Amino acid sequence: MKIIDKIRKSRREGEVFYSFEYFPPRTQAGVENLYARMDRMGRLHPLFVDVTWGAGGSTAELTLDIVSHTQNLSGLETMMHLTCTNMPIQKLKDSLQQAYEDGIRNILALRGDPPRGQSSWETCENGLSYAIDLIKLIRETYGDKFGIGVAGYPGGHMENPSYEDDIRFLKEKVDAGADFILTQLFYDCDVFFKFVDDCRDIGITCPIIPGIMPIQSYKSFKKVTEFCRDVPQEITTTIEAIKNDDKAVKEYGFQLVLELCRDLIKGGVWGLHFYTMNLERTVTLLLKELDLIPEQISRTLPWRRSANEKRHSEDVRPIFWANRPRSYLARTMEWDEFPNGRWGDSRSPAFGELADQHWFRAVGQPKRYKKMWGESPESFQDVQSVFVNFCEGTINAIPWFDGPLASESTSINRNLIHLNQNGFLTINSQPRVNAALSSSPNVGWGPEGGFVYQKAYVEFFADEKRLRALLEVQKEFPNITFHAINRIEKSYSNCDTVNAVTWGVFPGKEILQPTVVDPESFVVWKDEAFELWMSSWASIYPKESRSYELLENLYNTLYLVNVVDNDFIQGDIWAFFNKVIAKYSSK
Amino acid sequence: MKIIDKIRKSRREGEVFYSFEYFPPRTQAGVENLYARMDRMGRLHPLFVDVTWGAGGSTAELTLDIVSHTQNLSGLETMMHLTCTNMPIQKLKDSLQQAYEDGIRNILALRGDPPRGQSSWETCENGLSYAIDLIKLIRETYGDKFGIGVAGYPGGHMENPSYEDDIRFLKEKVDAGADFILTQLFYDCDVFFKFVDDCRDIGITCPIIPGIMPIQSYKSFKKVTEFCRDVPQEITTTIEAIKNDDKAVKEYGFQLVLELCRDLIKGGVWGLHFYTMNLERTVTLLLKELDLIPEQISRTLPWRRSANEKRHSEDVRPIFWANRPRSYLARTMEWDEFPNGRWGDSRSPAFGELADQHWFRAVGQPKRYKKMWGESPESFQDVQSVFVNFCEGTINAIPWFDGPLASESTSINRNLIHLNQNGFLTINSQPRVNAALSSSPNVGWGPEGGFVYQKAYVEFFADEKRLRALLEVQKEFPNITFHAINRIEKSYSNCDTVNAVTWGVFPGKEILQPTVVDPESFVVWKDEAFELWMSSWASIYPKESRSYELLENLYNTLYLVNVVDNDFIQGDIWAFFNKVIAKYSSK
Repeated sequence: MKIIDKIRKSRREGEVFYSFEYFPPRTQAGVENLYARMDRMGRLHPLFVDVTWGAGGSTAELTLDIVSHTQNLSGLETMMHLTCTNMPIQKLKDSLQQAYEDGIRNILALRGDPPRGQSSWETCENGLSYAIDLIKLIRETYGDKFGIGVAGYPGGHMENPSYEDDIRFLKEKVDAGADFILTQLFYDCDVFFKFVDDCRDIGITCPIIPGIMPIQSYKSFKKVTEFCRDVPQEITTTIEAIKNDDKAVKEYGFQLVLELCRDLIKGGVWGLHFYTMNLERTVTLLLKELDLIPEQISRTLPWRRSANEKRHSEDVRPIFWANRPRSYLARTMEWDEFPNGRWGDSRSPAFGELADQHWFRAVGQPKRYKKMWGESPESFQDVQSVFVNFCEGTINAIPWFDGPLASESTSINRNLIHLNQNGFLTINSQPRVNAALSSSPNVGWGPEGGFVYQKAYVEFFADEKRLRALLEVQKEFPNITFHAINRIEKSYSNCDTVNAVTWGVFPGKEILQPTVVDPESFVVWKDEAFELWMSSWASIYPKESRSYELLENLYNTLYLVNVVDNDFIQGDIWAFFNKVIAKYSSK
Repeated sequence: MKIIDKIRKSRREGEVFYSFEYFPPRTQAGVENLYARMDRMGRLHPLFVDVTWGAGGSTAELTLDIVSHTQNLSGLETMMHLTCTNMPIQKLKDSLQQAYEDGIRNILALRGDPPRGQSSWETCENGLSYAIDLIKLIRETYGDKFGIGVAGYPGGHMENPSYEDDIRFLKEKVDAGADFILTQLFYDCDVFFKFVDDCRDIGITCPIIPGIMPIQSYKSFKKVTEFCRDVPQEITTTIEAIKNDDKAVKEYGFQLVLELCRDLIKGGVWGLHFYTMNLERTVTLLLKELDLIPEQISRTLPWRRSANEKRHSEDVRPIFWANRPRSYLARTMEWDEFPNGRWGDSRSPAFGELADQHWFRAVGQPKRYKKMWGESPESFQDVQSVFVNFCEGTINAIPWFDGPLASESTSINRNLIHLNQNGFLTINSQPRVNAALSSSPNVGWGPEGGFVYQKAYVEFFADEKRLRALLEVQKEFPNITFHAINRIEKSYSNCDTVNAVTWGVFPGKEILQPTVVDPESFVVWKDEAFELWMSSWASIYPKESRSYELLENLYNTLYLVNVVDNDFIQGDIWAFFNKVIAKYSSK
């Protein structure tokens, strides 16, 4: 979706939006961290995010990778920066084409800074000289397919002595096809409002969004002043006076930017654009203080949609990847169409291979993980206690979760702990829900005034003996359907059809059923679920160690089991499990 | 679906099936009557029906019409008889092709009787001489695409003196590709069982289904004896003795055939094939006495599926045609695919034109309809009372219903009567249902162990003043969505999306939502609904009459309105209507 349309929609709804800018980190570990951070910040529902352009070379590739990831896997509408620096026209075209194919629909068109080590900007061979040329290139090649943002300079452009010329150039860029303006940073709101007035005077009518740079440290502030020429003297003086007290600088900077934001909102801005410097905390705190984060963020569906328009109509997914949504998105990226309304026939042959997933590999920080999962686990009990700890919240990761335990699980946490204490190692679950309001805090989703439903679901690893107990007890519970399968695909089940386990009924709408248990997809998922024992857990220990051997043994012998209680009105899946545990214990 | 597969399935389930044979009536009125009769008998869920082949000429066309109707519009798996009498090979091929295109998948391959007026059978020019040639022709041309039945003669073929030869020929027909055998009628079950034994001895292993001809009158019995040579002497004697007492013959015949069926079932037959002679009562009574009609016939969906395999996956329909299912089926016959899971985008442009529907025309029996709808209605009150009478059950038809009021409506009958008494002329409705068992007698449908839901729905004609009252009151009822439109498409609505109004949740299944309210389809339906005022009602009065004028005026001024209460859990649509009535009355 074009950002300009989102801006207009947000304006109509009378809300002040916010957006987050990031830059490509230099290391792969940095990129992984950034993704995690963006995911967390994504939960604040920014209107969009944008990623700066690595000036030429391999960092450009990285920008393309990151925007594709956030647009497609994190579900955030992502704008890609594109600059003319060191970019022959063909390369610009290639980058645009790749971005387009990856689902990107918004470009921030810039001339760019001079490359590192060069003091002034030079047009490269077969390149473009001005942002306006880039805008024209985009409009000529893609028509209206991209939304285009441009940069505005409330304090004037550092390299351009004439403020009036700046605004005239800006008008030309807008006339050439830019949809909206993001401004460079400033710390004096009058500077911004004068800039807006001057833009309006010359006939620029599009939205002008102020760029906000939180002050995180003295060092970063010094850097800022290099390209922001009208930092009020008062601020500089104050910061210089406390420059050796990091905490004081941070606190002063926070209050300063908070007041700036408040003044901007009072002045009627449509939104705030944050230069996050890839940092999470300050921006989150600012938004909280500004009271801009909706108390309860309503969910369209129980899972977050991808921002790729190709997946716009997607509204059904198997429950198995609920805790690994990025893996699901990546493994289904090549699909031509996405299930809508009905999951329907198995699509398993079309799932991407595990081996093709670049993040499906050994984790990078064995130390961090050993702290959570044990320095050298030696028994099943050691492993079991990791699962118990995760449910209890004393550790915040196990290999089968992209993030922490979902908030809706808190209602069944004690039951999950009990299961894990008895050797049923849970990796996915949801409580039974019978006609909860769509606005309910934990389980609600979808349009207002509707009702949502869930069938109780538990997925876990268990050894053969525990599985046997389950198979016996299941005969007395006609409402229970289940699938069990081990690594070499020995399997048991009493249901070969697709089972909707989450659905909603809304005024004036068709029924939505966003999650299903699909036997065919379960077989695909189980490979991923089993592989995680080795790639994410065993791999942090030496290959010949007892810990490695223990985990490898579990990998080879456990069953992955999913259980659905189809009686969403009165069923008690925990009564079922208690019987299973009793049966197992009595043997 | 092939009948042989249905027979096998029924056998696996341990049930004795039944099937009904009909012949093409001579008049168009007779055909309409037959359709109504087949619809009613269809509710007994015969395994299949079959229609005899009019020997050559126009009656052959009629057979093709009827089988297409029953297969596609009545939702009954239909077998077409095909004979070699007066049929050059090309004509046989053409008939097979048309049947195939109409969705027919079963042929009873016969040589056929000699044409009327000819005493012996003769091969026609470029024709075939034996049923086995026809079987070979079908298999050569269509491979396995058709299921094929053949006739067996337990008493021997009338024209063939050798019983042994008969059975040898039958074996050859089965070897050539016939799937099962329907026998000619008989009245001595030992004759049938001997025939089966003889068939098995010679190596015929396919199902052999006994043909049963109820004795309805002395005249029909006499006709039977012409082509059934071993009617036990005892039967003939008894019937001859009471031949002048119609009732006695009927009663004796009924008991006789009832005993025959009982003996056959005791002897282990898989099913009973009834020669209905297009009569309904005796066969229905026989099945009741034999206790073969399931006490509660479970519905797969709230509406009956077409038997055409093209529509096999269809599981969503607009509610508007609920009382005119054949019209809906006919108007959507040309669709390439049928909505499955989600109604989705409007398909209105693809609805067949009203004018193309051959049965959408003036009704044929003005006398009969005047008795129900008034000799000469002169006021709105006269019209109103017709709707009231229909709800009260004192008349059994109004133009907007293919059949009588649905049984589920009985629970809201008093509310409907009240509405009609106040000038809201109802033509469609369903009560609110919140999690009824799928096995519930009136509202249940779908697999066992599930729960079904409905949003309360009422559709009616009302004048502008009543509509105004509704529009005002609606503002206080946020759960109510509605559409109102008159003949010239002046319209009001507060909902432009597709609303699921019937859905079900079942163990191990995706959610089904078989009926929806779709604004786009409503516009298509309204043409049909308005046209019925003129074509089915006004047309029974002279064009210059006051009655005609009255109905034409309603046709031109009323609005067609549908109302959904989206609160299926606690909503009270009748409280809404009471307020509307109060508002209207207070003006």
